[in-house]
Amino acid sequence: MINKSLILQRRPRGLATGLDVVLENRELLPLDDGSVLLKNRFFSIDPAIRDWMSERKSYLPPISIGSVVRSTTLGEVIESRHPTFMPGQMVWGLNGWEEYSTASAEGLMPVPETLSDQPQQSLGIYGAVGMTAYFAFLEVGLPQPGDTVLVSAAGGMVGSLVGQIAKINGCRAVGIAGSEEKCRWLLDLGFDAAINYKICDDLGAEIYKSCPDGVDIYFDNVGGDILDAALLHINNRARIVFCGAISTYNASEPTPGPFNLWQILAKSARLEGFLVRDYFHRFPEGIQQMMDWVSAGKIHYNEHIVEGIENTLDAFNMLFDGKNNGKVLVRLV
Amino acid sequence: MINKSLILQRRPRGLATGLDVVLENRELLPLDDGSVLLKNRFFSIDPAIRDWMSERKSYLPPISIGSVVRSTTLGEVIESRHPTFMPGQMVWGLNGWEEYSTASAEGLMPVPETLSDQPQQSLGIYGAVGMTAYFAFLEVGLPQPGDTVLVSAAGGMVGSLVGQIAKINGCRAVGIAGSEEKCRWLLDLGFDAAINYKICDDLGAEIYKSCPDGVDIYFDNVGGDILDAALLHINNRARIVFCGAISTYNASEPTPGPFNLWQILAKSARLEGFLVRDYFHRFPEGIQQMMDWVSAGKIHYNEHIVEGIENTLDAFNMLFDGKNNGKVLVRLV
Repeated sequence: MINKSLILQRRPRGLATGLDVVLENRELLPLDDGSVLLKNRFFSIDPAIRDWMSERKSYLPPISIGSVVRSTTLGEVIESRHPTFMPGQMVWGLNGWEEYSTASAEGLMPVPETLSDQPQQSLGIYGAVGMTAYFAFLEVGLPQPGDTVLVSAAGGMVGSLVGQIAKINGCRAVGIAGSEEKCRWLLDLGFDAAINYKICDDLGAEIYKSCPDGVDIYFDNVGGDILDAALLHINNRARIVFCGAISTYNASEPTPGPFNLWQILAKSARLEGFLVRDYFHRFPEGIQQMMDWVSAGKIHYNEHIVEGIENTLDAFNMLFDGKNNGKVLVRLV
Repeated sequence: MINKSLILQRRPRGLATGLDVVLENRELLPLDDGSVLLKNRFFSIDPAIRDWMSERKSYLPPISIGSVVRSTTLGEVIESRHPTFMPGQMVWGLNGWEEYSTASAEGLMPVPETLSDQPQQSLGIYGAVGMTAYFAFLEVGLPQPGDTVLVSAAGGMVGSLVGQIAKINGCRAVGIAGSEEKCRWLLDLGFDAAINYKICDDLGAEIYKSCPDGVDIYFDNVGGDILDAALLHINNRARIVFCGAISTYNASEPTPGPFNLWQILAKSARLEGFLVRDYFHRFPEGIQQMMDWVSAGKIHYNEHIVEGIENTLDAFNMLFDGKNNGKVLVRLV
């Protein structure tokens, strides 16, 4: 059985290209006991994958050269050697950019019945992406009514959800995004202000204008210059949720931390890293709450679906030029 | 009445020199209602003063050019226009490097009776320095028995106290200091290991050797390369107490944050700034505990007293070359 697979041939410098990530036909090995064979239906296209392609010490080991690119996928069980899973069942887990994945049963989560019409939601709003927004904002950000919440990459799914959850919690929500269209969308979602960082001369001045009482929670997905600008406007005891640093993932040299790190001391503030895996055990409560908010019309989101495994790398690189409109998924036929 | 005063004439670039900070005779103005005139007995010589000399946005405004250098001092009340204070009383507060200070009564703290023999302890072990070690370590570091605690500038008063409080709390204490003599002293104090960063080729390797189970609390007084090395060895959920960044205070250009900031995300760790003023209301409990530990022989400390206002700048610069041996104070005649 032939398995079309995207293989990491070498570590990218800058944006990953077709010389770094190559489509190959690989052979599928027979299943071990305790394993499950999946036909993948969707790949979750996430910025973190770029980090795993590098050699930087991180929360997961680097993807080995010659291996399939690691990715969360949603697939249908087509063969099972584990009693929990049956052919036909939809499951998600940390697998790879490949048509078929053989996965250890321990790492797989079943897609709930209620999502059977739109199982890809288990990769987005009702999966790790939505739960990142939910738990990172509430458990690390510790919002209080009246707080000013500033969110970077606010046009992405995590950022746009954080702003909406901030509004539900009685906060002022200000988003930073990379186009006028995204900024308009944020205002439609109920954000109090939106800053297009690509057209402003002085981001700090724009932050000050949109956050005249200072920033109580800065939810950071990007790092770099935007983090530096935000640090100059934090309030005493501010919480900086360190959820991602997309501006640094394609750097070919190590990137320095913020020049304004001192503001964390000057304001008795806190910068805290968030990994969604620390909250897997609490997904059921978060997903239920998110479903209730979506049903009540309080939360809106977009999915950006790209068709075909051969377009995976293009879909991935959209994340870095901000051309996507919502959570990026690749659908396999 | 003539008041010898050290005046900030211009902002230093690098170490402060006698061209930046100049001894002048200034005239004392008459007291306002609510104010107190002090004859200063001791200056507390602290790295933070160098930060206040710069223009960087910080937790206090920069010292104005032409003003006396701001400093915590201990003085005797010689005239009072406030009912709480009487001539002869010893008090401390945020005043300046000058023989006499006129101070608003609100900012002054009386030296407790029990310290009347050694009132300068109110500037050190039983004052802001000791209370920084106490509250920053316990309230931000959140130690658990068995934790590994790594402390930079461990030969200084804050760092050496932190290590000793770590041992009292059942932690492993590892200090980083700048001389063999300081390292020996740390081992005498009960630190489990001490690293002389000035003679090691690979600080990260030394940290790994001394902290084989990783670092649960990194208590940082220095920033820069040492922070970067420590970040590579933190454990999941580590706490980084951001108490100072002495390595950056003399920089003439803005200094970047750590290259390894990503480790805070990769380890779901936390970096939190500490300002002792947030704990002024809890000084009595902290001072009482510290006195009990000192009486019980569990805490040891050194004071490094320099004589004469004219030697203040030399005393101050000792902090940055690490030539001091304990808390630096200037005694005025």
